Amino acid sequence: MNKRARCAVVAAEDANTIAAVIRAYHECLISPILIGDSELIGEMLAEYCCEKNNIRIIHETDHKKACQIAVDLANKQEADCIMKGLVHTKEFMHTILKRENNLRTGNLVSMLSIRELPHYHKLIAFTDAGICMNPTLDEKRQIIENAVKALIAMGYEQPKVGVLASVEVVNPKMQDSVEAAELKRMNQEGIIKDCLIEGPISYDVAINKEAAEIKGFHSPVAGDADLLVFPDLTCANCTTKAITQTCRIPVGSLILGTKVPVILSSRASMTETKYMCIALAAAMKLND
Amino acid sequence: MNKRARCAVVAAEDANTIAAVIRAYHECLISPILIGDSELIGEMLAEYCCEKNNIRIIHETDHKKACQIAVDLANKQEADCIMKGLVHTKEFMHTILKRENNLRTGNLVSMLSIRELPHYHKLIAFTDAGICMNPTLDEKRQIIENAVKALIAMGYEQPKVGVLASVEVVNPKMQDSVEAAELKRMNQEGIIKDCLIEGPISYDVAINKEAAEIKGFHSPVAGDADLLVFPDLTCANCTTKAITQTCRIPVGSLILGTKVPVILSSRASMTETKYMCIALAAAMKLND
Repeated sequence: MNKRARCAVVAAEDANTIAAVIRAYHECLISPILIGDSELIGEMLAEYCCEKNNIRIIHETDHKKACQIAVDLANKQEADCIMKGLVHTKEFMHTILKRENNLRTGNLVSMLSIRELPHYHKLIAFTDAGICMNPTLDEKRQIIENAVKALIAMGYEQPKVGVLASVEVVNPKMQDSVEAAELKRMNQEGIIKDCLIEGPISYDVAINKEAAEIKGFHSPVAGDADLLVFPDLTCANCTTKAITQTCRIPVGSLILGTKVPVILSSRASMTETKYMCIALAAAMKLND
Repeated sequence: MNKRARCAVVAAEDANTIAAVIRAYHECLISPILIGDSELIGEMLAEYCCEKNNIRIIHETDHKKACQIAVDLANKQEADCIMKGLVHTKEFMHTILKRENNLRTGNLVSMLSIRELPHYHKLIAFTDAGICMNPTLDEKRQIIENAVKALIAMGYEQPKVGVLASVEVVNPKMQDSVEAAELKRMNQEGIIKDCLIEGPISYDVAINKEAAEIKGFHSPVAGDADLLVFPDLTCANCTTKAITQTCRIPVGSLILGTKVPVILSSRASMTETKYMCIALAAAMKLND
């Protein structure tokens, strides 16, 4: 059985995007479906001298139509993920989210990012660090469910989830801590499934066993979290950007809450970042 | 004129505290006033073979009374900063903040922390990453004023201040961005003085000129911020802990909004961290 993820790339005629796609193709992670200017795409592929057995090219220079082709492929189960190339985010996401296109699941659309931190013994995932501004408690549940579903698809058995706050005890004056405890309760009562939620928990206790021991905080999630959940977009943005600026490490991210994962890396992103995103989407297919 | 800061240490009989104090003393930064068990303190000092010309010891084993002595010294202008030793934070801060002790300025009490980030060309200060949970707009003004006053005392001429959000344009749905723009306006109208405020600004644009250029965001603060202001405690806590966990660098921090700066480093802090805090307080005296 072919476990390559079929990745539909919209406006694929972009050097960084093609480079990332070809790398993932050569590593047998994906079968690319390149939608765009077939002449330009052909020239770019020629530079990589790649055999085109698994590469499908669909000629469509109109961006709007190219977006629609990708969505249709996903709906026909001919694509396992959709990737943005040289098209504008607004135009791309408009087609992805349009109700008639029927690509939404019941849940909120959210973002999951994964990176390799120094001083941490495994990968760490963050959510939502890109889309939801001020999620309500119920929206946080949906964000967690999206992320857990994706992590399970990537091969995790029961991801350990830390809902971030600045404390480990509920403080009624800190809404973050109250909602974190509520999400833990929903997990304990089986409302949020397939994961182990701890919260409220602070960043250092979630990823550093020593910090947890000093604070006398005992939880299987402490020092061993797989997924950290932010209270709001500003907190997520400041924290992940601080890490990125400090570590200069590539980040993989996916849009979830859609039938297939969507890769939205910025047009200015490095090849390495685009590759990481593709690898994440491919990992979801691998464990299908 | 002696520019050493007179540093009153409450319950000084703590090895890490004494080590930090002695280092700062040998570097001519401070004149210690060690309040606590004089016998224990004497033994600890003997280990450092230090000449005691500038070291004043006040024997007081009752922690409550030791706190009060430090506060009284500050009120009599015989101490330029107060440092917590082996005493509990609650007992210590209770004495510092008690109205009768008259140690408050008109402003909110807040925390300023300073660290040396990798990939940044100068020191960076953060506020408030320790005390105020959900500051209102007016409280944010007070937090900025506390920090700017301290930075000026340390020798800055006109600190560049970035009020953090996840965006550079005001979004009415994001209260952080609205208040950041308000704080910028207060600065432009001369209500918040002696600094240059930019906001809303995201973390990467504030400390990375390239990120600012890519986003086409022009401001003297972009890529050159001296002080970053967080919207709330959870955001501050997640961001600063992410940096600390990632970089493993010592942090200096001070409590402000009191007549003299207060050093509150945890009893478990490393000597290096305690020393950094003392050095910050001493820097405020140096430029007096």
